[in-house]
Amino acid sequence: MDQRISLITLAVADVARSRAFYVDGLGWTPELEAPGVLIIRAGEHLLFSLWSETEFEEEVGPINRGPGVAPLTLAHNVGPKAQVDDVLRTARVAGADPVAVTEGPEDGGPPPPAWVAVDRDWGGYSGYFGDPDGYRWEIACAPGQVNDIVVPRE
Amino acid sequence: MDQRISLITLAVADVARSRAFYVDGLGWTPELEAPGVLIIRAGEHLLFSLWSETEFEEEVGPINRGPGVAPLTLAHNVGPKAQVDDVLRTARVAGADPVAVTEGPEDGGPPPPAWVAVDRDWGGYSGYFGDPDGYRWEIACAPGQVNDIVVPRE
Repeated sequence: MDQRISLITLAVADVARSRAFYVDGLGWTPELEAPGVLIIRAGEHLLFSLWSETEFEEEVGPINRGPGVAPLTLAHNVGPKAQVDDVLRTARVAGADPVAVTEGPEDGGPPPPAWVAVDRDWGGYSGYFGDPDGYRWEIACAPGQVNDIVVPRE
Repeated sequence: MDQRISLITLAVADVARSRAFYVDGLGWTPELEAPGVLIIRAGEHLLFSLWSETEFEEEVGPINRGPGVAPLTLAHNVGPKAQVDDVLRTARVAGADPVAVTEGPEDGGPPPPAWVAVDRDWGGYSGYFGDPDGYRWEIACAPGQVNDIVVPRE
């Protein structure tokens, strides 16, 4: 089995609502659309699929529901640190949910307000937003090996 | 915000157990390892990160727990249909969980046993397995536009 992910599929409550956020809000281009599914290109050989949770459950099985976040994050890495803040602003304008930052600053003060990216223990700078279903996107600058791999050169 | 996913991060109960499956079992090569995290390359500009759920929850917030599957699937697409069965066999040998196929065949008979890929309404052929945390991988052949994008040419 080759080391490849071809599609990441998220179950969503309302595909039209997801479309409004990703396509109308963020300006992303649909690659494929059919009733109950919206597929967006997210890499050279990668598709991002938003699938009606009703159809998802029919094929994959009942979804784990309850309080709390889904056990995944999608990261969008950028080169310059300042671009983290720019992208968070774009997402905010597109209607993303602010996400409480659960980690306080290193001086032990109160957690910064939502929408504020913070310096991370692992050496980078990042902040989160929630999509219409609450899926967490981390906008990150991870200088070194991670950014060298994931941020395409212009 | 460019149309790019840089990392897919999954919260896992035991990083060593995930490593045994993905690295020792499937033969994948770690790109980065640190206490509590294993990062594997999964595309040209894509990393797949398995992160200790304790650390995940400290940064992202409490995870939604309970019965049922996580609301996502990762797909690994292959060219020839027969390769779907080959990859499912590989995963089985690596210790993946068989996943009950919830969809029966079109003739209305009983669902096929686990590990059997099936023809899908959308025109492809696919089967699922579960990783050590129960995350669903779909091994798929999706002839046409999807496979044209996601399956790299040899």
